[in-house]
Amino acid sequence: MGETEAGIRFGIIGCANIARKVGRAINLAPSSVLYAIGSRSLEKAKQFADANGLAESVKIYGSYDEVVQDPSVDAVYIPLPTSVHVEWAVKAASNKKHVLIEKPTAMDGAQLELILEACQSNGVQFMDGSMWLHHPRTLKIKDMLFDSKLLGDVKYIYCTSTLLASPEFLENDIRVKAELDGLGVVGDLGWYCLGAVLWAKNYELPTLVTALPDVIKNSNGVILSCSASIQYGQPSAETVAIVHCSFLSNTSMDLTVTGCGGTLNLRDFIIPFQENTASFEFTKGAKFVELHVGWNVKPEQVVVESQLPQEALMVEEFARLIRGITESAFPPDPKWPEISRKTQMLVDAINKSIHLGCKPVYF
Amino acid sequence: MGETEAGIRFGIIGCANIARKVGRAINLAPSSVLYAIGSRSLEKAKQFADANGLAESVKIYGSYDEVVQDPSVDAVYIPLPTSVHVEWAVKAASNKKHVLIEKPTAMDGAQLELILEACQSNGVQFMDGSMWLHHPRTLKIKDMLFDSKLLGDVKYIYCTSTLLASPEFLENDIRVKAELDGLGVVGDLGWYCLGAVLWAKNYELPTLVTALPDVIKNSNGVILSCSASIQYGQPSAETVAIVHCSFLSNTSMDLTVTGCGGTLNLRDFIIPFQENTASFEFTKGAKFVELHVGWNVKPEQVVVESQLPQEALMVEEFARLIRGITESAFPPDPKWPEISRKTQMLVDAINKSIHLGCKPVYF
Repeated sequence: MGETEAGIRFGIIGCANIARKVGRAINLAPSSVLYAIGSRSLEKAKQFADANGLAESVKIYGSYDEVVQDPSVDAVYIPLPTSVHVEWAVKAASNKKHVLIEKPTAMDGAQLELILEACQSNGVQFMDGSMWLHHPRTLKIKDMLFDSKLLGDVKYIYCTSTLLASPEFLENDIRVKAELDGLGVVGDLGWYCLGAVLWAKNYELPTLVTALPDVIKNSNGVILSCSASIQYGQPSAETVAIVHCSFLSNTSMDLTVTGCGGTLNLRDFIIPFQENTASFEFTKGAKFVELHVGWNVKPEQVVVESQLPQEALMVEEFARLIRGITESAFPPDPKWPEISRKTQMLVDAINKSIHLGCKPVYF
Repeated sequence: MGETEAGIRFGIIGCANIARKVGRAINLAPSSVLYAIGSRSLEKAKQFADANGLAESVKIYGSYDEVVQDPSVDAVYIPLPTSVHVEWAVKAASNKKHVLIEKPTAMDGAQLELILEACQSNGVQFMDGSMWLHHPRTLKIKDMLFDSKLLGDVKYIYCTSTLLASPEFLENDIRVKAELDGLGVVGDLGWYCLGAVLWAKNYELPTLVTALPDVIKNSNGVILSCSASIQYGQPSAETVAIVHCSFLSNTSMDLTVTGCGGTLNLRDFIIPFQENTASFEFTKGAKFVELHVGWNVKPEQVVVESQLPQEALMVEEFARLIRGITESAFPPDPKWPEISRKTQMLVDAINKSIHLGCKPVYF
């Protein structure tokens, strides 16, 4: 068939918008190839293939089952509504397909455990679709974060992800439907913020998570906007993170990490302003000059180039791990399921805190 | 004496560091002149005058009383510890001196009312030392904030002020002493953040204020670091503001105001990086391009020049109002006491919320 030489063969189940982006990434990534696309109707799958100019060699299926059962498919990308993740991720893993799944990974931690158990028992790799973790900027900053001479102890993390949803989105998007992506903005934009907090703390779990009182829900109880405090250490906070996510204001994606000795700032941490270059700002040892009429330093801008879009780097890393498993009998990398597990735990904690009337939830 | 022609004659009581900055500002402002400086000892006042190269014409007093009783003094600048503000501000007002006072204005709202009543009944102008409100950048942004075509409804405000206090500061500074500036970081850095929230909401009072659980106090119960949520509207938040202030991390002064249609960002809102030029960033109608591989806009940087430092502009505005009172029999401008009163109310609310175990405090 030729695809083996071309790389890891991906099947996509579902024709969500995000599938267009990841489909392109699969084609851009050197080690992977888009092998099959499946929708609940053959018609929709064909439309998707046409609209996105997919190669004629791509198999078009009128069901998800055909994709996950196709013996030539190595890995399945799952952009389906969160409520059906557990069903299709478990089916894919049971068919020995590696699982790349959109965030939020599941409706709650218990569902995610079912997925992770299926992946583990079938020896397949699991990864969620947090693309920004694969950008070279993210990797560069991570090095700086843990260089004690630069940032020092991380004291404060601030993270936001907002976008202004259209009236149509607020009416019809799956992210505002309780029975589809019922985690609303927390599972969608909040996922990135919570992931960023964990990332900045090297995946240490916090001591407590407290939702703030500004929660806004739609008439079906789906969260459209909310904030949370995520605290490490108690009674005295070693680090505190504040996150805010909302479908109700202008697009923003700010990440600030402040240590004793320095501050990192990004304005576009989830999706860089431009595809092949991204920047961040860094201030070290900031203080005021004599008489406090100015600062000793201004934020320094650091530019990081990227050869491939971050989503293609994500696919490439996923394909690399699959190669290790299939060609070298390496075990699946436990890092990625662990990142998803902890992020999902924070999502669950925010929901629990909101349910309890914004009381703290302890880990 | 000549000073009448030279402008409004200021007396300073207390030789705090900040008095050096404001003393310089008084000399820089066209309509004012530094007339007298008083300390609790003549020796200290002389040292201050020498160290700061004050003109020989400046009167040197060995007590605060001599300054506030000097009939040639028009206005008194009070940089004393907060705990003695009420005593000296009331004395100054009772002696018909206009009152420019460092923030926090008082230990609580009740004390501030005593000061404001004394100012009102004596017909003198009151203003607190929030210099940033007088910067032309602040005025420019204010115009943008209320241009509905630019920012739209303000949904989210984020504000932080942090600095890394030295071990000596944490041991000896008046801002960590319960009996001196007992409001700690909330009264010091927090004052600016709370003032910025009110400013961005055109001095509307919020519905509720909730301290977050990350409060850090020293062994005397003085707050060194804390955060709060400030919410407008309930049950559904129209606007939410999150503030964070700390003596325990690298210097930062971020202010973000996000509306439905745009976002304003400042990194140095309290003290601009440089004295005579300042900038801010603005994003309007941000959204993602096709496939979500980038943004349609990048933040636009807007530069604002300032002829005089913001503290000199503050003094100039204060002097202008005094001129209106003395030369044109205008009443004192009620705007400035009102700004201080509302800011102090938010300080009090945060303290109350912390005292109640981070329960919401309603207005």
